[in-house]
Amino acid sequence: MAQWIRVRDQGKVKFGILDGDALTVYHGDMFGDCAPTDERLKLDAVDLLTPTEPSKMICLWNNFAMLASKLELSTPEEPLYFIKSPSAYLAGGQTIRKPASYDGKVIFEGELGIVIGRECAEVSEAEASDYVFGYTCVNDVTAVELLNKDKSFVQWTRAKSFDTFGVFGPVVATGLEPDELVIRSVLNDSERQNYPVSDMHFRPMRLVSMLSHDMRLMPGDVIACGTNVGVGSMKPGSTIEISIDGIGTLSNRYE
Amino acid sequence: MAQWIRVRDQGKVKFGILDGDALTVYHGDMFGDCAPTDERLKLDAVDLLTPTEPSKMICLWNNFAMLASKLELSTPEEPLYFIKSPSAYLAGGQTIRKPASYDGKVIFEGELGIVIGRECAEVSEAEASDYVFGYTCVNDVTAVELLNKDKSFVQWTRAKSFDTFGVFGPVVATGLEPDELVIRSVLNDSERQNYPVSDMHFRPMRLVSMLSHDMRLMPGDVIACGTNVGVGSMKPGSTIEISIDGIGTLSNRYE
Repeated sequence: MAQWIRVRDQGKVKFGILDGDALTVYHGDMFGDCAPTDERLKLDAVDLLTPTEPSKMICLWNNFAMLASKLELSTPEEPLYFIKSPSAYLAGGQTIRKPASYDGKVIFEGELGIVIGRECAEVSEAEASDYVFGYTCVNDVTAVELLNKDKSFVQWTRAKSFDTFGVFGPVVATGLEPDELVIRSVLNDSERQNYPVSDMHFRPMRLVSMLSHDMRLMPGDVIACGTNVGVGSMKPGSTIEISIDGIGTLSNRYE
Repeated sequence: MAQWIRVRDQGKVKFGILDGDALTVYHGDMFGDCAPTDERLKLDAVDLLTPTEPSKMICLWNNFAMLASKLELSTPEEPLYFIKSPSAYLAGGQTIRKPASYDGKVIFEGELGIVIGRECAEVSEAEASDYVFGYTCVNDVTAVELLNKDKSFVQWTRAKSFDTFGVFGPVVATGLEPDELVIRSVLNDSERQNYPVSDMHFRPMRLVSMLSHDMRLMPGDVIACGTNVGVGSMKPGSTIEISIDGIGTLSNRYE
């Protein structure tokens, strides 16, 4: 088990393993050959970056039984998803910004993120774990009133791709048992989501396998597994935290 | 006016300006400071690559009046779009592959692609041309029977993101007047699409401006402007060509 983290230190991007309030810097490729250096950095002296730079973030819709029941959605036969713009990625500790061009509600959605470690295409569910690097927390921020603004086309990509709306981190944790994880969302110290991965229609290994039959998955890519009951809108000035045991807390202000 | 091209030469990625059946290799940044070298390469001695490596390809739906009229779609108030997976990108001359996991119809969609040259956010229509690098041909290949397979969620991303389904090139052409361009699609020597940009609901400068208010656009990003009447399915063994005067012909086999 390790918690991989990426930071900017005096203008340089570095990565390594988190250990308390510091990281041990590694050199090489996080997903391939890499080794520790002698360098240790205090977390409070560096800027946190997103733990990977995904070529794509695939985001699931309607992947939880409890939320489907509440919204009277049927259970899908296959994963239903969209892709969020890479320009939206945001690290923990940074500020989620209200879009200048949109005045409606902005909601948080706490989710588990699967981080891919090896290029993969058409893998079976049994093989899928060989291609997973680890897990992270995702806040799939959404300008929710855009979704159904046009009656002929649901605007998933647009509503979820504003700059700063693709929040994930603070680390990628390896060695976790994904089906046992629990996702918690806390808005201004008040718990709003607390749900288990076990309520998913398509659990992580099944998702990796099925999505890998639709498109090639690349090292660093994130699959945001969808959210469950309890999402809500954020007022400017709020703090929103997504927590998963073993990964930690993804904490951001919303302004 | 120039036609920028990217190639692989003995394992190395190079870019430059096309001149007849050869290219003059440049060094530097295609979107910034760059200068010609003394190296010239014959096109038939190198492998064609996609002319840029987009961080995202934004694809428009329902952006042409003639197709909207045929399908009885209303004119949208704002651009409607999704993002295609970067793993789908394919250069001219390469083979579009039928997905192993899908047995339905696969269609071509000939489109104009706008290529962004400078990072841009919230720009006006009058400023938009400052951020456009040039134009390319796009074939927005689609596993069309997946689109409405699930009644609760139209699967735009999935149907259009299989490996090899994001075809663009062969070059990025600068100095063109986009509103005067005409897009032609030829399937096995038979013309199937021939339509003008002037039939767009949202023309290129308006698209760049409006999309830049939704998300940050990056150098190399492609906006696929949507298609018009005449799309059709391809049988394995077909050759599909998308042509725009000033850009050239994007030609691919489908197997």
